[in-house]
Amino acid sequence: MTRRKISILGATGSVGTSTLDLIERQPDRFEVVALTAAKKVDALGDAAIRTGAKLAVIDDPALLAELERRLDGSSCRAAAGREALAEAAAGEADLVMAAIVGCAGLEPVMSAIEAGRTVALANKESLVTAGQLMIAAARRSGTTILPVDSEHNAIFQCLADNRSCDVAKLVLTASGGPFRSWTRDQMASVTPDQAVAHPNWSMGAKISVDSATMMNKGLELIEAHHLFGVPSDRMDVLVHPQSVVHSMVEYVDGSVLAQLGSPDMRIPIAYALSWPERMETPALRLDLARIGSLSFEAPDLDRFPALRVARDALEAGGATPIILNAANEEAVASFLARRIGFLDIIRTVEEALARTDAAAPRSIAEVIDIDRKARALAQDLMSEMAA
Amino acid sequence: MTRRKISILGATGSVGTSTLDLIERQPDRFEVVALTAAKKVDALGDAAIRTGAKLAVIDDPALLAELERRLDGSSCRAAAGREALAEAAAGEADLVMAAIVGCAGLEPVMSAIEAGRTVALANKESLVTAGQLMIAAARRSGTTILPVDSEHNAIFQCLADNRSCDVAKLVLTASGGPFRSWTRDQMASVTPDQAVAHPNWSMGAKISVDSATMMNKGLELIEAHHLFGVPSDRMDVLVHPQSVVHSMVEYVDGSVLAQLGSPDMRIPIAYALSWPERMETPALRLDLARIGSLSFEAPDLDRFPALRVARDALEAGGATPIILNAANEEAVASFLARRIGFLDIIRTVEEALARTDAAAPRSIAEVIDIDRKARALAQDLMSEMAA
Repeated sequence: MTRRKISILGATGSVGTSTLDLIERQPDRFEVVALTAAKKVDALGDAAIRTGAKLAVIDDPALLAELERRLDGSSCRAAAGREALAEAAAGEADLVMAAIVGCAGLEPVMSAIEAGRTVALANKESLVTAGQLMIAAARRSGTTILPVDSEHNAIFQCLADNRSCDVAKLVLTASGGPFRSWTRDQMASVTPDQAVAHPNWSMGAKISVDSATMMNKGLELIEAHHLFGVPSDRMDVLVHPQSVVHSMVEYVDGSVLAQLGSPDMRIPIAYALSWPERMETPALRLDLARIGSLSFEAPDLDRFPALRVARDALEAGGATPIILNAANEEAVASFLARRIGFLDIIRTVEEALARTDAAAPRSIAEVIDIDRKARALAQDLMSEMAA
Repeated sequence: MTRRKISILGATGSVGTSTLDLIERQPDRFEVVALTAAKKVDALGDAAIRTGAKLAVIDDPALLAELERRLDGSSCRAAAGREALAEAAAGEADLVMAAIVGCAGLEPVMSAIEAGRTVALANKESLVTAGQLMIAAARRSGTTILPVDSEHNAIFQCLADNRSCDVAKLVLTASGGPFRSWTRDQMASVTPDQAVAHPNWSMGAKISVDSATMMNKGLELIEAHHLFGVPSDRMDVLVHPQSVVHSMVEYVDGSVLAQLGSPDMRIPIAYALSWPERMETPALRLDLARIGSLSFEAPDLDRFPALRVARDALEAGGATPIILNAANEEAVASFLARRIGFLDIIRTVEEALARTDAAAPRSIAEVIDIDRKARALAQDLMSEMAA
């Protein structure tokens, strides 16, 4: 069996290290080509030597000398900076795991897509902010994009080889977050500690807050729209507190296919790594008899307006989702720094959307520019609100 | 678009009439070739004329004249008897819906398989009693068997284009029947009226009793084994009282794919009719937010020994499942006629299995012979028990 060649962009983050964990369990099946990291030069050097990677790229050029020192005597080449990152993304791999967090991931993802690499996409910003550009590029190059996010991975699995015209709707499940049954009044005094306590998944602070506002599900609707080419009115959100059903597809015949599993990111990562085959993972097997009960409820758009705001942004298209994403990220950071309240997050986002009217971006550079301006605007708005 | 040519064996029963209902909604998509019925000559004649079928076969030769009278002036040919049934099964159709109930279905199903027709299989006896013969014949002729039973249809959908080596296990869901939480002592005095009150599906009396003893799930394990080539130790039964999840497949990566839907047989029938595409059905769309909660529990083999007995029969193979099925059918009929008690059903089956040692059948004729003898034995055993 020929080994599958894998490159990992963002190899030292959460998805990156889980990817390495899975790959290193099956050395007969996978071969590492290139690894990249933003700043964690130690972890990058270790992983490169352990896996026999050919290229290790550190984003920060100031850390190149340190990386070189660590790779000394190995056959792995050290490199740094934007061009080296593009080289790692577009290189000889069969599959590029795109796990860089934030807008820093946009250019490398685009490089991988344009080079026709199969892309396992874990970078959320790619489709939220540059979905049209990325999908158009993927069509041109014939690239397959395999979603790593658990919801989109679930939908990808449930779509299997069905015709898109047979899909009635996509149903994204949402845990509902820690404030699922709270009133708006109760939410007004939420603290960062309360907001980051996600009931099911172990996640970073920013994503936990997005889960608490349900903005995460709004952003996922935008991603799903681009990934699967399904319009807003054929995508539903369903609150499912146990996070066992990761998402579903309803077909025109009335069949619903659902993907279930333990809340372990190694499951969707393994699916992307081995697609169209599967591979064993150490993830806990689902035991529904032990779990006992799964519950479902419609989301409440009054208490969770982020869902409505994000859907409007999806339908508006153009630059709107970029502004939504940027303003939300700035507002969440301010909330975590205790500069604004929990309900001010969506207020900031709505105000930012109301005040901007950017044209649809024609390039990743324009996306990044719109993103930067939206962040500045969000900061100004929060200063105004505080005054 | 070329219309798909369909023949329906057992066109006047429950699955047959649902099939006709679906086909007649999409005359541009389907063309009826042959229809058969056991005795309902009125319904058969009407359906043949309505759909423009070319051949109508009534099983009972005494009813041929009546069928001919009804088809007079139409272009549909009337026929009767075993050879005409085989002709309808093996004829020019693209898909044969095998919906004859009971062992009467075995020979026509085998004819369709040997002729290389794609078979939508709704006849339970085919795989329970003649699974090895049918699957071997299907391999020889290159036939695809599409299961119509909701559990097996769910598994077929969840398997999609996955490799069989990536399947960790099949999980058949079971409603648990009306006595799911009853003690053995309570079950001792169950009446036929109590046993046929199935909580979710509208079914015939015999199948309802099988659901109450959970023998239906045991028989389905045997069918699943043959259909999907999965051994007993990689098939689980999971009690799920709401009957919304129709069955599941667990993969080696920890992913579980499930098929859900309203309890409406038109969904799996439509899937079989349109496979590998799908078609619209009038089935109620699943509304999980309205349903609210789905629950799951392990089956209790002490209170529902039929599951264990059927699994043993599956593992023993050969003629054992034929005897299991025949003795069960006779015992259920006696229970419905108030000649034996509810707990005597499994007692009769176990005793019949203990007393017979038939060799594996080499033909459908031998299957039918073993079946006939097992029924006689079961009757003798019940007379003994009553004495």
